[in-house]
Amino acid sequence: MSQVNAQSGSEQPRRRGRPPVAPADQAARKALMRAGLVHLTERGYSSVGVDEILRTSGVAKGSFYYHFGSKAAFGSALIDAYHAYFAVKLAAWFERPDLAPLDRLRGFIADAELGMAQHGFRRGCLIGNLGQEMASLPPEFSDRLIAVLEDWQHRTAACLRLAQEAGQIPAHHAPDELAAFFWIGWEGAVLRAKLERKAEPLRQFADGFLRLVTH
Amino acid sequence: MSQVNAQSGSEQPRRRGRPPVAPADQAARKALMRAGLVHLTERGYSSVGVDEILRTSGVAKGSFYYHFGSKAAFGSALIDAYHAYFAVKLAAWFERPDLAPLDRLRGFIADAELGMAQHGFRRGCLIGNLGQEMASLPPEFSDRLIAVLEDWQHRTAACLRLAQEAGQIPAHHAPDELAAFFWIGWEGAVLRAKLERKAEPLRQFADGFLRLVTH
Repeated sequence: MSQVNAQSGSEQPRRRGRPPVAPADQAARKALMRAGLVHLTERGYSSVGVDEILRTSGVAKGSFYYHFGSKAAFGSALIDAYHAYFAVKLAAWFERPDLAPLDRLRGFIADAELGMAQHGFRRGCLIGNLGQEMASLPPEFSDRLIAVLEDWQHRTAACLRLAQEAGQIPAHHAPDELAAFFWIGWEGAVLRAKLERKAEPLRQFADGFLRLVTH
Repeated sequence: MSQVNAQSGSEQPRRRGRPPVAPADQAARKALMRAGLVHLTERGYSSVGVDEILRTSGVAKGSFYYHFGSKAAFGSALIDAYHAYFAVKLAAWFERPDLAPLDRLRGFIADAELGMAQHGFRRGCLIGNLGQEMASLPPEFSDRLIAVLEDWQHRTAACLRLAQEAGQIPAHHAPDELAAFFWIGWEGAVLRAKLERKAEPLRQFADGFLRLVTH
């Protein structure tokens, strides 16, 4: 623990260059991120205040601004963390050699349903929630949100391409189009599952998609 | 103009029984509804305050509370008005005898795209916006929002049933399931069109849906 809030002498390019912080600070950052994730997946960005994040996390205001500088930067960090978390989850499912390609997608869908069920279907997708609020968001958010959805789409297209090569999806379908279609509709399914507080909309969309693309 | 704010002597069962109000009051109510629709379709319910509605509409606070009593009642009135507006629009498209059933759905979709384009894709669907914010909404909203979506779904299922009878949709599809699938995904498409500020997601979803259901 030799580097407690040590400030490097040189100008660092953005947050990535920031020097390591003490474990207590790391814990505060984690608590803020966790509280932010809960609030923003439940209620979105604009109706959640920094004070609320502080109350839930038990972290002091100074620590919030030390770590993030602003609510917008905090939101950006949450988008990045959420993106990274789901990129790992998608990769884990889509690269499973023991499953046929479409079963990998089925696995991801079942996993996502489980994730929503664990929180009583109160939490939606951070990206979908923020997408819905575009008019109230910092303008730089929209490009990030679109990029996240496109990354998920590309990963899904690769899986669907494998499914087509394996004969699970007829040749007349275009995997890229199917993947775009899936993510457009899946965000609607997450929204509806949150509204109805149940899994059925996720299943209706997923079953419909899988039935349609296999014909 | 003989009935200016005349209060009837008998207890009226809810708003429906309220006596007619003066034209000036009707104009205020309309201005409030119009401002509410703009703000709530752009930004949702929880981040829009009554004061903002008053500023945009130029209506006095007393008039707002005279007409609606509370922000929640105002939100309910907006849901009802939005529901009625789209019920008329769906009926107009889905009952057009000059179009084949699937072309009626295509017409509705093109109309919806035009509606979003007119406002620069800044406004989403009121029902989808509010659905996304469930955790911040008055609890009585969720049943109303679900009922609106189910009404739209039933109307769409009837159109798809006609399409199936006309041979436009193969017999192995179930119109009710397709209609549920359509509305789950369509709300996702509206969300995405708002995020990307363009028509493409609406078209990607609609084209995908129509291609898939006709096979």
